[in-house]
Amino acid sequence: MIDRKSRFARKAIKADEARQLILQHIRPKPIHEELALEDCLGRRLAQDIYAPEDVPHFRRSGLDGYAVRSQEALTCDHTRPVTLRIVGESAAGCEEPPEVVPGTAVRIMTGALVPDGADAVIMFEQTDEFEQAGVPWVRIKHAVCPGQNVALPGEDISKGRLIIPSGSRIGPGQLALLAAFGITQVPVYSRPRVGILTTGSELLAVQAALAPGKVRNSNAYMLFAQVSAAGGDARWCGSVPDRPEEARAAIDRALKDCDAVITTGGVSVGDYDVMAELFRELRTKQAEPGEQALARSSFVLFDKIAMRPGSPTTAALIRGKPLFGLSGNPAACFVGFELFVKPALLALSGASNPVEELWEAVLEEDYPKGSPHDRYERAKLNFRSGTLTVRPLGQSKSSMMLSIQHADCLLLIPSGPRGLQQGDKVRVLPLGYEPTAIPEAVRMEGDQT
Amino acid sequence: MIDRKSRFARKAIKADEARQLILQHIRPKPIHEELALEDCLGRRLAQDIYAPEDVPHFRRSGLDGYAVRSQEALTCDHTRPVTLRIVGESAAGCEEPPEVVPGTAVRIMTGALVPDGADAVIMFEQTDEFEQAGVPWVRIKHAVCPGQNVALPGEDISKGRLIIPSGSRIGPGQLALLAAFGITQVPVYSRPRVGILTTGSELLAVQAALAPGKVRNSNAYMLFAQVSAAGGDARWCGSVPDRPEEARAAIDRALKDCDAVITTGGVSVGDYDVMAELFRELRTKQAEPGEQALARSSFVLFDKIAMRPGSPTTAALIRGKPLFGLSGNPAACFVGFELFVKPALLALSGASNPVEELWEAVLEEDYPKGSPHDRYERAKLNFRSGTLTVRPLGQSKSSMMLSIQHADCLLLIPSGPRGLQQGDKVRVLPLGYEPTAIPEAVRMEGDQT
Repeated sequence: MIDRKSRFARKAIKADEARQLILQHIRPKPIHEELALEDCLGRRLAQDIYAPEDVPHFRRSGLDGYAVRSQEALTCDHTRPVTLRIVGESAAGCEEPPEVVPGTAVRIMTGALVPDGADAVIMFEQTDEFEQAGVPWVRIKHAVCPGQNVALPGEDISKGRLIIPSGSRIGPGQLALLAAFGITQVPVYSRPRVGILTTGSELLAVQAALAPGKVRNSNAYMLFAQVSAAGGDARWCGSVPDRPEEARAAIDRALKDCDAVITTGGVSVGDYDVMAELFRELRTKQAEPGEQALARSSFVLFDKIAMRPGSPTTAALIRGKPLFGLSGNPAACFVGFELFVKPALLALSGASNPVEELWEAVLEEDYPKGSPHDRYERAKLNFRSGTLTVRPLGQSKSSMMLSIQHADCLLLIPSGPRGLQQGDKVRVLPLGYEPTAIPEAVRMEGDQT
Repeated sequence: MIDRKSRFARKAIKADEARQLILQHIRPKPIHEELALEDCLGRRLAQDIYAPEDVPHFRRSGLDGYAVRSQEALTCDHTRPVTLRIVGESAAGCEEPPEVVPGTAVRIMTGALVPDGADAVIMFEQTDEFEQAGVPWVRIKHAVCPGQNVALPGEDISKGRLIIPSGSRIGPGQLALLAAFGITQVPVYSRPRVGILTTGSELLAVQAALAPGKVRNSNAYMLFAQVSAAGGDARWCGSVPDRPEEARAAIDRALKDCDAVITTGGVSVGDYDVMAELFRELRTKQAEPGEQALARSSFVLFDKIAMRPGSPTTAALIRGKPLFGLSGNPAACFVGFELFVKPALLALSGASNPVEELWEAVLEEDYPKGSPHDRYERAKLNFRSGTLTVRPLGQSKSSMMLSIQHADCLLLIPSGPRGLQQGDKVRVLPLGYEPTAIPEAVRMEGDQT
């Protein structure tokens, strides 16, 4: 049996401190890619984008109407209209509309080039058209101001202006801007390759039939989804039984291929907790002469966190790459990912602000259970009333595995002997997934069991 | 010139009414697919999923310790310990641990099978181990209750229970559940194929150099991103100039391949508004004898909405498929998609609740501009204080194209002569994209221009 004292000798740190420790050691992947515009959705920009041109880049009409010389219609109204000869039109996309010389107007469409000579556009509804001897005329019935309904070059966006900062995730608005400026090759951060390795002799492949004492490997799929949602490129690195030499070899392989590796299981203080054993080796190993560089780039960041679930969550740097040892318990694995791995992946992906600030919310129901440690409960937010309220999902034991699908935040229950009461102010970490509504049928069943 | 009266004869309806009109005519795509577990992330389940097995499916230990017969240690404490012979172990994944007969205990790990004979597990920390004449013993120093730390079959989830309802989007929690139950072929709704067709003689390809009066086709990319975010399979159907016969042919082709088609541009009342012309034809066309079926499945749903921007937003059914005519103005195009197209795509995708309810929020700053129609402003929510507050992004003219990237909701400014004041309660439609933070540099520049 392993010496119990060394097994329990871990020193717990706070979750915030643990996250800061990780982020101190993580920089965006230095490799950038240039992607075609249609392939960069969801990626993060690897450089600031400045406007290469003015928008608009020509004098643009704001509506459908007539382009005129404003000084010819400054004071007119319906009792003293001005009549101008229509000398042509400027449709959208027209590159060379006729010039507006004194006494004339040009029919013009929204977004079209305002012709030389004109300095204002008056809307159709404030004019009348008529023909006389085959010649078209327009009667202007409202006063026209200089510049009216004409957007000047650079009025929307001036050339040289920062339009999208580096680190931004490319969504609809960013993609539209890149397209508008003709930026067809987009510099983006490479997605971090994230190895997922599960440990545990109890794990079955998902297609396997059940056997006593065995469970299917659901954490691997949960992490696959979490890594993908955080912008990582999830790589499946297999599952190993609780034997240190196999786990060590699998981790070495995974670290060669990946920018970060996540393991599940084996981090606690049980006899077969292989990950705990590997991390213990790393922690206690003295640098041999000549291994100084390795020692500097390979070390345990923390191996215990003052929180529930997931207190044995461990993180190390191995030759500069983060290795996360998450718990095999699904709830602890989920929480450990959200609190520690996700910010690291966002930082690797180039996000400028990888840590989501906690929000304040009002607790919808009592949470009677006290705890000597901070607890992170899966929970559901409600925004509809104007006050942000939150309801923990994990209070019923039966809902443990079921509740993850409905969670849109983690609710922080601070350590204390008494728990919390309905109406208390609490803090929550939004998850950013699209949670599903909890169907009434599921809630009813949950209440019965 | 086209008859002005018929052009302006559109009847405006409210946005809510327009959305209901669309949703009345849309059903999920009847074609389902079965996807492998690793491919179904982000898709929607096409049937209810019930638990095919109990979880746990065996008597499972809740922690590391000793499996014992509780009646042998009901009343012991550290002054009156009970000593049991350790007859073996049950590690995680162990299928046949030794039986716990009277006077014995089995060392057991978290998640492992509780051996026959035992009905409770006591944690390591409440025991001492020792050896005597080569035989291992454990001293139990705390009272043990029947069933303590043993999860019974079905305790988490009982067989036959609804675990994920049809229509749920598959995220981390859903994927973990499907894996845990060995559901490796997942029935999902097919993604709706959504054609994007842009109209306008002013549109340049994104790689083209600018010319006077021309702009690059940014709406196509914005819509591509919006369709993708809503779960649609965006298909690029090209761009056509403002000529009705070309637009008509392109729409016909697009509708053959796609489940829904979005056009941008040409819906207003200008001379070259081709989409308006096509919709007018459809509206005024009388069913010929023998065309009754066509008339029933092809008609305009609405062609004017009492709102800004995007009042000429139009929708029709063509042989039962939705055709959306969005404005070419980027802000109106964006808003029109979010209000009308997205719910339709969610309904086509099998979402059980395709319309997001509006949230209540508190306005962070004055919005002095009154409007005869409801306005939907791009805006940014702030959750951090516990009260949901919102700030409109579109008040500065310069930020029009820039602000879409920062928007996480649409703020509804109800029609009225006065606008709104800071502190007023307003309603917002959350967009569900991951918005970027507005960098200080961008805000500063915005204030200067």
